Amino acid sequence: MGKEFYRDRLKKPINQEVLNFLSSLEEDLWIAEEDIIGTEVHTIMLYEQEILNKEEIGKILNSLERIKKSLLNHTLKLDYGFEDIHPFIEKCVIDEIGMDIGGKIHTGRSRNDQVSVDLRMKIRSELNILSERLLTFVDVLIKMSEKTSEVYIPLYTHLQRGQLGVFAHYINNYIAQISRSLDRVAQVYQRINKNPLGACAIGGTSINIDRKRTAELLGFDGIVENSIDAISSRDYIYETLMCLSLISIQCSRISEDLLLWSTKEFNFIELDDQYCSVSSVMPQKKNPDTLELVRSKSSKIMGNLFTASLMIKAIPTGYFMDFQELKMLVKNSFDTVFSIIEMLTGIFTTFKINEDKMICAIEESHILALDIAERLVHDYNIPFRVSHQIVASLVRDSQKPEDLFNKKALETLILKHCKTSLKLPDNFTESMKDYKSCLEKRISEGSPSIFEVKNTLISLTRKTANINSLFLKRLENLERNKELREDRIKKLIL
Amino acid sequence: MGKEFYRDRLKKPINQEVLNFLSSLEEDLWIAEEDIIGTEVHTIMLYEQEILNKEEIGKILNSLERIKKSLLNHTLKLDYGFEDIHPFIEKCVIDEIGMDIGGKIHTGRSRNDQVSVDLRMKIRSELNILSERLLTFVDVLIKMSEKTSEVYIPLYTHLQRGQLGVFAHYINNYIAQISRSLDRVAQVYQRINKNPLGACAIGGTSINIDRKRTAELLGFDGIVENSIDAISSRDYIYETLMCLSLISIQCSRISEDLLLWSTKEFNFIELDDQYCSVSSVMPQKKNPDTLELVRSKSSKIMGNLFTASLMIKAIPTGYFMDFQELKMLVKNSFDTVFSIIEMLTGIFTTFKINEDKMICAIEESHILALDIAERLVHDYNIPFRVSHQIVASLVRDSQKPEDLFNKKALETLILKHCKTSLKLPDNFTESMKDYKSCLEKRISEGSPSIFEVKNTLISLTRKTANINSLFLKRLENLERNKELREDRIKKLIL
Amino acid sequence: MGKEFYRDRLKKPINQEVLNFLSSLEEDLWIAEEDIIGTEVHTIMLYEQEILNKEEIGKILNSLERIKKSLLNHTLKLDYGFEDIHPFIEKCVIDEIGMDIGGKIHTGRSRNDQVSVDLRMKIRSELNILSERLLTFVDVLIKMSEKTSEVYIPLYTHLQRGQLGVFAHYINNYIAQISRSLDRVAQVYQRINKNPLGACAIGGTSINIDRKRTAELLGFDGIVENSIDAISSRDYIYETLMCLSLISIQCSRISEDLLLWSTKEFNFIELDDQYCSVSSVMPQKKNPDTLELVRSKSSKIMGNLFTASLMIKAIPTGYFMDFQELKMLVKNSFDTVFSIIEMLTGIFTTFKINEDKMICAIEESHILALDIAERLVHDYNIPFRVSHQIVASLVRDSQKPEDLFNKKALETLILKHCKTSLKLPDNFTESMKDYKSCLEKRISEGSPSIFEVKNTLISLTRKTANINSLFLKRLENLERNKELREDRIKKLIL
Amino acid sequence: MGKEFYRDRLKKPINQEVLNFLSSLEEDLWIAEEDIIGTEVHTIMLYEQEILNKEEIGKILNSLERIKKSLLNHTLKLDYGFEDIHPFIEKCVIDEIGMDIGGKIHTGRSRNDQVSVDLRMKIRSELNILSERLLTFVDVLIKMSEKTSEVYIPLYTHLQRGQLGVFAHYINNYIAQISRSLDRVAQVYQRINKNPLGACAIGGTSINIDRKRTAELLGFDGIVENSIDAISSRDYIYETLMCLSLISIQCSRISEDLLLWSTKEFNFIELDDQYCSVSSVMPQKKNPDTLELVRSKSSKIMGNLFTASLMIKAIPTGYFMDFQELKMLVKNSFDTVFSIIEMLTGIFTTFKINEDKMICAIEESHILALDIAERLVHDYNIPFRVSHQIVASLVRDSQKPEDLFNKKALETLILKHCKTSLKLPDNFTESMKDYKSCLEKRISEGSPSIFEVKNTLISLTRKTANINSLFLKRLENLERNKELREDRIKKLIL
Repeated sequence: MGKEFYRDRLKKPINQEVLNFLSSLEEDLWIAEEDIIGTEVHTIMLYEQEILNKEEIGKILNSLERIKKSLLNHTLKLDYGFEDIHPFIEKCVIDEIGMDIGGKIHTGRSRNDQVSVDLRMKIRSELNILSERLLTFVDVLIKMSEKTSEVYIPLYTHLQRGQLGVFAHYINNYIAQISRSLDRVAQVYQRINKNPLGACAIGGTSINIDRKRTAELLGFDGIVENSIDAISSRDYIYETLMCLSLISIQCSRISEDLLLWSTKEFNFIELDDQYCSVSSVMPQKKNPDTLELVRSKSSKIMGNLFTASLMIKAIPTGYFMDFQELKMLVKNSFDTVFSIIEMLTGIFTTFKINEDKMICAIEESHILALDIAERLVHDYNIPFRVSHQIVASLVRDSQKPEDLFNKKALETLILKHCKTSLKLPDNFTESMKDYKSCLEKRISEGSPSIFEVKNTLISLTRKTANINSLFLKRLENLERNKELREDRIKKLIL
Repeated sequence: MGKEFYRDRLKKPINQEVLNFLSSLEEDLWIAEEDIIGTEVHTIMLYEQEILNKEEIGKILNSLERIKKSLLNHTLKLDYGFEDIHPFIEKCVIDEIGMDIGGKIHTGRSRNDQVSVDLRMKIRSELNILSERLLTFVDVLIKMSEKTSEVYIPLYTHLQRGQLGVFAHYINNYIAQISRSLDRVAQVYQRINKNPLGACAIGGTSINIDRKRTAELLGFDGIVENSIDAISSRDYIYETLMCLSLISIQCSRISEDLLLWSTKEFNFIELDDQYCSVSSVMPQKKNPDTLELVRSKSSKIMGNLFTASLMIKAIPTGYFMDFQELKMLVKNSFDTVFSIIEMLTGIFTTFKINEDKMICAIEESHILALDIAERLVHDYNIPFRVSHQIVASLVRDSQKPEDLFNKKALETLILKHCKTSLKLPDNFTESMKDYKSCLEKRISEGSPSIFEVKNTLISLTRKTANINSLFLKRLENLERNKELREDRIKKLIL
Repeated sequence: MGKEFYRDRLKKPINQEVLNFLSSLEEDLWIAEEDIIGTEVHTIMLYEQEILNKEEIGKILNSLERIKKSLLNHTLKLDYGFEDIHPFIEKCVIDEIGMDIGGKIHTGRSRNDQVSVDLRMKIRSELNILSERLLTFVDVLIKMSEKTSEVYIPLYTHLQRGQLGVFAHYINNYIAQISRSLDRVAQVYQRINKNPLGACAIGGTSINIDRKRTAELLGFDGIVENSIDAISSRDYIYETLMCLSLISIQCSRISEDLLLWSTKEFNFIELDDQYCSVSSVMPQKKNPDTLELVRSKSSKIMGNLFTASLMIKAIPTGYFMDFQELKMLVKNSFDTVFSIIEMLTGIFTTFKINEDKMICAIEESHILALDIAERLVHDYNIPFRVSHQIVASLVRDSQKPEDLFNKKALETLILKHCKTSLKLPDNFTESMKDYKSCLEKRISEGSPSIFEVKNTLISLTRKTANINSLFLKRLENLERNKELREDRIKKLIL
Repeated sequence: MGKEFYRDRLKKPINQEVLNFLSSLEEDLWIAEEDIIGTEVHTIMLYEQEILNKEEIGKILNSLERIKKSLLNHTLKLDYGFEDIHPFIEKCVIDEIGMDIGGKIHTGRSRNDQVSVDLRMKIRSELNILSERLLTFVDVLIKMSEKTSEVYIPLYTHLQRGQLGVFAHYINNYIAQISRSLDRVAQVYQRINKNPLGACAIGGTSINIDRKRTAELLGFDGIVENSIDAISSRDYIYETLMCLSLISIQCSRISEDLLLWSTKEFNFIELDDQYCSVSSVMPQKKNPDTLELVRSKSSKIMGNLFTASLMIKAIPTGYFMDFQELKMLVKNSFDTVFSIIEMLTGIFTTFKINEDKMICAIEESHILALDIAERLVHDYNIPFRVSHQIVASLVRDSQKPEDLFNKKALETLILKHCKTSLKLPDNFTESMKDYKSCLEKRISEGSPSIFEVKNTLISLTRKTANINSLFLKRLENLERNKELREDRIKKLIL
């Protein structure tokens, strides 16, 4: 019996060139373990439903376990005559234990539901790895936030210096974004973790299978009920890729911050040497290549989403070969996002903050302009719009940052704009220059005052701790079902 | 005082060409009502915090209510000298009640948090409309499913006839997809419905504002805490667009089905004339233009997501003018998705199903091949793989569909493949041809047997009913907060 | 006769909701003039082929000219009962001159070829506007290059200071890119400027039309021969959008440069006030909003390309309603790219260059490291790789930029790396610090030496002059054909 | 000397995790041969410029030739301690012939121009392969067109039967599209085939190199003059990807046609068995997997363009590590487009045309409606719009296709619409039913009449022959320069 043991319907074999074009055999290694487990569970269920007898299930499981073992220790030899992993493994079993028994493992299922069950199991475990990596990254950020709540930095809008802030405030912003992404991961997980097995080709089967039982043994929370939906919908892949895209946008924007701050012109941070590259020709260069690649590789993840959009949108309801190309997009996106998060985690663990350069940037600016304008509002009940105009005029006519604190000029402008003569206290402008007390006055919730920065960090820490415990529960569930399954296998195996 | 009353910092006015380039004034009408409400709530809070006095809040609310009224009855005259809606409305108020009071409304906030609060309120209400439209569409589909659970149709994979099914089975598949999208809408809603107001420009404010109070009056479930996050993150826009993209993919694939089924070659359905167009030149044409536009317009929604990706990914942390372009992408995506869903709802309400053509397609096919193969498995314990080969050979050598039921040929092939002579009962193949009983044998959960189709519909109906009641709760909450707000305004207004 | 005078095939009229969904009437105004001209030429040809008689053509042209005039002076009143411009104009003619004559204008053509002829004519003229705008921008850049060939600036790689250069060198880089885009525009133009008219619906016509003649009168260089190709292919739209995308990428990257240089941290240029915006709350802010919008709007152009990809890829050969959505993508992309180029042209005309800040950045760096390393290669035949290591070590151990010129340290390192003691001349490092002479030594073609910068500018100027004269020839051709056409109309009109 | 022989500037080595993240070593194998050739030419030029002496160039070329040979026979062992191919090869040379000589090969160049020269050479040769593949595909199509100019088929618009045509007419449409793509390939080639070498890092070099000479020896048509442009612009990559995207759209749309025609419902063609796959479970299935993968893989090519857009747009002027990720996008796009074209070529060589099914589809339709309407115009001078209404009414009220030829009904309708009684000749409708004579009447240029189909094919054949001879000239030029280069090497090598 040849490799094309599905192909009796056709008169001609596939030619080599076509096989190369169609084949996903090598790519399928990514889901090979899931595929074997899926087959084990499917056949256990067939036994429990009395479609296989005790001897049959014993031999089948024995064979599958052997194949799994050789897969895991990398001794499984692929036969490139097969166009994908599914017939290859079925054929391995048949070769080992004969057609009479091995020929029964595909009873009541199809490659169509099989592919989907494999992918859902794989994505599920990738999403768990993702949660773990993001939580680790968050831990590093939390630690950095704790240490930098009094490290002053300009807050930028339009890349121009806007308001005085602290470094921890930027970090908390990162944590807040990632914590939302962790939420999304959990929600996607919950929708993906459903069992499509038993949908068969597209219209179910007349074999007396038990879909709830395979769901249980595979650790799924229920089944994808409608059989067309189970083999035709790819929203689970699309939403996985969307979720990864959003994370990659966040990581890319974080990298942009660090790239700017690493320029000699900003010079707010210095990357550790081990995260930098050099020039083959310019001896003085120290390049933040890792950050640039985070930015660039995140584009790949986003591009994968677009590619998947094109693929999925093109096709009507049903199963199509087009779907095959989605698998590598998902794998590539996960691999890439893992590496990106790993890099950022390492970079944040090691970079050096140049506090003095930030202070410098603050001092060479009019960054306290709003604080002064609000003081005029607060102390003298000047309408904010007027006070804004007053300080704006002061800035417009200033030669140097120091001019912002020119009490005299301020009084003149107040007179001009408010038609009332006002005498500012001697310490009016002086007091503003103390960054600490200036920030203390920023009493709005979520502001960069030390008090609020710490408060925000507490609430972020609490939120991510909750996410973490839900994540651990997901892991436990999978573990429990795994034990159940392996127990069953141990008892049935010959 | 001119239109550029923010611009004292600069020495030159904006020129007309630049104004045209920058201006979003007209586009901002989409969020103008939200903007006014946001300002009302902001100033009420300023009053409650004793930053405004009773007379001031009275006059301000009076003015804002008047502007809102003229906006809603389309008598508000835009002044194209303003670059966006925010200064325009502030200026309207100041013009009406004077700088001394009107100049105070922008105290303790910035356009940056204002834009975000407007957009979140608007997206929130668009998401509610979306839920409602989808639920209406689902209702139509549920009704169609109920009526077509015994209308036979081939189920296709690879656009080739795969298994026998019923029309309702396709419909249930649609419902299942949309119900997941409804879940996603609810989850996005929950993340978006947070108050960014009070983040001010980027670093909060020293004005004694109360962010929780504005959250309450605006109907938000809490605040976006970190002030950078509140004005810099655009994940709420990105995930809105992702959600709409996925819905549009689903709608586009549904349209593809209908387009195919509307060809003369398939001819399974006939669109109602009112959903069709004609040719200016070919007198016989009846074209499914609506479906083609559903397919095409859904590409716009997906394209908007990718445009937004490009925009958001490009920028580091902070507020940037780049964001301005996102607003119209969101509006356009919502408008388009609404029109798409509306079309599909109408089309599904009116098209005619050609049951006879589907029966025809079934009869002219080997679509029962799998059912026969499984019967051999079930009745004679032939391994599925062998039984698959037997039936595949039968098909390969058949001249016409009828040959599939050639008992003799089947027996010969069984002998050849199994080496055992088998005598099939006289009614073996005949009984297969009864579609009803054939489908009844498809006992797997979620299959297209009448029993399972009805079961699935019941569970889908239950699921969407739950979604609906959660949706109604969202509406109630908004309504309650609206009353609270309007009450407060009524009491404070002069 | 109602508005639906094509619709006799169907039994029901279109409903209002569907009409709204389908209608492109308003959008079609963009191509309305082209549409009328196309009809004029088509009917003139019908007359010349003796399908219309003298009276008929006279009345038809009379009516079309009247409609065109009212279109151009904005008095044409659209009737929103029509779904697009083509039946609307046909109906206008019929209403004016009666069905007996007016009913003949659509003889031997279809909306399918009509849409394509309109779009090709419109795109053609937009491409000409584009060429003109780009050439104007190039002129501004050439002038700036001429003035800045001795303005020193660091050349950056990885956003880190790389080599010494001059401002004009950056500008020449911009010119080189845009000149290639001008080439692409010309090539796209040449492929687009072909006549699809006469392809009719998809399969030509039995009416004795003359496609070469309409091509001549419409100014096309030949016809799109195969009739399916003429109405089904959209590569002319795709390649237009590709061309605009590439221009927008170039503009966006130029904006990124200016945005960075406009930060206080770089401070290499200062945008003119009229191209800047302010903050509603932070009095000191001067924001480069125009540049940010160039970046952001260029994303729209790129997004339009991807939307178009999705639309075009989705459909098999033939005409489909999907195509309708392409028109606005093209219009929006042209409008946007025009505004972007206009902004950049204005910005480059007005910004101020801070030579001192650039000098500062050069002085505070090790930017001459490569020049020193190459001097060691040149003067002492030290292998470049060794000389690179020597200077790299010098930089690594340096405390301040000045250390790069530490002759002693250099000699020590040479000894260490080359095992030979070397005595550098007294003026070895000193001479390097003279930027002018340092650049003069960069003798490679296309380098930023003053000589090479001027040379490059000469060759760029020559190249764009050539492009310009080819562009003028395109305009002349169109003008000549326009005269031919208008002459013909004048003679035939009644 | 370790692997990090560029890294003296830094104090810490790269860590393993970072190396994995940064490394492109394996991917660089795609351009390794080009890299070596680039280095050979660079050093030959250094010798000719008297920067290397005779012994030095001899040893260097000897070493490079050895490395090239081991590369080509796959015995080159990569050292994964290197982050990319450039230092790896430099180090190989140095290890072989020592630092004193080997340390000189990087004189006057940088990785930045080196990467670009490698990529341009590689893309150049890939574009040549592409031209060749497309020309082969065109040959197959030309042959099919020749054979099918009298095979009748409905021409579809909106997937509805529009006009009568012939199969060859569809094929000519494909040829026309591809011939335009061949034009584009040639134009892209011409812009890409320029020499960036000598731009060095970004600002040229003080070493006395000769860029025109390296251009000559590498077969480039001139140099990329401005040194920033040479290392910073990526429009050559973007336009390559655009060109491939457009080809992939064309191939995907062709596949859509074939997919539809392969359904049982259309059944116009039957794919050869060797291009089909089967189902693991449904014994009767014969699936057009190859066509589905053409559709799906073409999405990857388009997605690669989007990914590249994201990457390139993100960065300001200069060289950035981001660019590294572009290489694999280009490689993947070429590989994929090659495989797609190969598949289509094979499929078109082998599929079977079911003429009878197409005739059937024609007969079961009103496809001759327009021909009839035009006959009324032609024979009786009925205005086309009226004649359209007449035939449309006829179709609307018809029960079966045959009714279209009901002379009586036609006369009645003419009377009703034209108010004149008309007596059609007895053979009026009968004559229409002869497809051959019906098509003969379609006299417009480019129509599907046999005459026009043949004419069009002649002009397409002529056009592609021209393209082919220009292509051969490109190959000759490369060959000539290769000989020149290899001659030079042979003479200089030690």
